[in-house]
Amino acid sequence: MNTEGIEILLVDDSSADVDLTIHALRDSPLIDRIHVVRDGEQALNFLFCKEPYLERSGRPLPRLILLDLKLPKVDGLSVLRVLKQDCRTRSMPVIVLTSSREDNDLTASYDLGVNSYIQKPVDFDRFRETLRTLGTYWLRVNQAPPRQSLDSRAEQAE
Amino acid sequence: MNTEGIEILLVDDSSADVDLTIHALRDSPLIDRIHVVRDGEQALNFLFCKEPYLERSGRPLPRLILLDLKLPKVDGLSVLRVLKQDCRTRSMPVIVLTSSREDNDLTASYDLGVNSYIQKPVDFDRFRETLRTLGTYWLRVNQAPPRQSLDSRAEQAE
Repeated sequence: MNTEGIEILLVDDSSADVDLTIHALRDSPLIDRIHVVRDGEQALNFLFCKEPYLERSGRPLPRLILLDLKLPKVDGLSVLRVLKQDCRTRSMPVIVLTSSREDNDLTASYDLGVNSYIQKPVDFDRFRETLRTLGTYWLRVNQAPPRQSLDSRAEQAE
Repeated sequence: MNTEGIEILLVDDSSADVDLTIHALRDSPLIDRIHVVRDGEQALNFLFCKEPYLERSGRPLPRLILLDLKLPKVDGLSVLRVLKQDCRTRSMPVIVLTSSREDNDLTASYDLGVNSYIQKPVDFDRFRETLRTLGTYWLRVNQAPPRQSLDSRAEQAE
């Protein structure tokens, strides 16, 4: 498994949850960098290498996206829909990580093709343990799609 | 989380791998039953309640499908394609569990919407450990879609 320079994109507008997630995942020796964006519009700009992320063009897409649902500007379900409908980003594993307890969010996420759906535990220790299991599973057990940039995936899909 | 009567469908034609998988997962107190089918045609008949599985009509779909790729009659990628294109089965988590080391299988699985892809470790102990992590993640950490039968999902999609 090629673990060189694993990058994760974390999309969450809660500073407390961002801090906790980074803290729980940064113990993993596999992760090179956790990018954080605070709303759905930034997430899409980051992944599609648009302003202010033009410099990402040609770089591999993140290994994993952790996506909150209740987000400013563009909500998480809309981000998920865009990613799973675009042949360049469809194969990227997207894990919804949300405080939502609504069945509608759960059902809609699976219908849109989410890879996995996790309700953030309210309890601090359980949240941290959940994130560690998530890291072990997705970075050590799951075999990720080949590392490719947005452009090379577009060429492959043609 | 409703853990009552969790059913898993294991699709694998290797008796050794089936035995190992059942052994590793049956320690989980959450699992009520692991159904085993040996080829892709049986898998589709099971899930779509066709002969010889007519009696499954009205029962909830399995919580999880563990799907080998090299299968008799209908191969795993074809099964995955059918499940992810049908609105009644799309939301069921499907995990490919394969001996394949081919990038084509990996890429095709993600393009077809697989939830997760695992290469079976050759080493016995590592395989068992992988299955235990898989069980913990998908049965305790991941939030499954609501338990529904094939028919009720069809009604919901209308």
